[in-house]
Amino acid sequence: MKGSSKRKFEVVEVGRVENDFLEEVPDDYHDKTSKMIVHDEYTDSLLGLEENSHIAVLCWLDRSDRKIQRVHPMADKSNPLTGVFSTRSPVRPNPISYTVCELLELDENVLHVNGLDMLNGTPVIDFKSYTTKYNIKSPRFPDWVPERDRNE
Amino acid sequence: MKGSSKRKFEVVEVGRVENDFLEEVPDDYHDKTSKMIVHDEYTDSLLGLEENSHIAVLCWLDRSDRKIQRVHPMADKSNPLTGVFSTRSPVRPNPISYTVCELLELDENVLHVNGLDMLNGTPVIDFKSYTTKYNIKSPRFPDWVPERDRNE
Repeated sequence: MKGSSKRKFEVVEVGRVENDFLEEVPDDYHDKTSKMIVHDEYTDSLLGLEENSHIAVLCWLDRSDRKIQRVHPMADKSNPLTGVFSTRSPVRPNPISYTVCELLELDENVLHVNGLDMLNGTPVIDFKSYTTKYNIKSPRFPDWVPERDRNE
Repeated sequence: MKGSSKRKFEVVEVGRVENDFLEEVPDDYHDKTSKMIVHDEYTDSLLGLEENSHIAVLCWLDRSDRKIQRVHPMADKSNPLTGVFSTRSPVRPNPISYTVCELLELDENVLHVNGLDMLNGTPVIDFKSYTTKYNIKSPRFPDWVPERDRNE
């Protein structure tokens, strides 16, 4: 897209992650609980949230490199160099994550969730009602995608 | 979270949607093709993308209201007033969409995709390899979620 200018937008933190993951996310994060503390001005947006067993959480990976465009997936040099858009690496031009979590409890502006793979202090920028409409039948993946992420 | 300051971040357009949806997204968008034109400086990030049958696309809904915090879901007044975080409404503090699309073809910096529910000209801010790891068994939804979005 030569000659066209890239537009830029301001994303705001709507909440923050609180958990014990200070340096890295443990392998068993699926079984670990985190809090999401929602900023006061967004509490009106929480009405009815507790009717969802699961939510899709988008965070801004504020400690990620935005310049790197190719990685060896799963940090394994035996995997082929791959464009970040073909991965779910935290390293990408806009370091936005997408994780589906179990919503355990909503206590005023504090969400207790299971399965959030984020470091303590990470900015939350959005979360949504989970939907099954994107459960694709028989998708095709790159060879390096591990078996645990291919199960249907 | 009283007294704490909200952090802000700059999100950049990595590409743009091109399709025939000028005013609204048609109901049968699942069967319609769109192009995603990736800006030249991000073409290195596309390496290996064609090995994915599906990708998860994040757009910045630049025509969405960011101030509204509660909506009647599905634009149906008979549905209860609901906080936007408990919906997938385009109206939200950070108007970021998440759609899983079929990747039909990658032609240099142009992706041809099926099933993108975005208006022509919408900024693309990220896309990722699709994963089945978030296919939740027996999730619980708010009552207003239509049957077509509950199927597993």
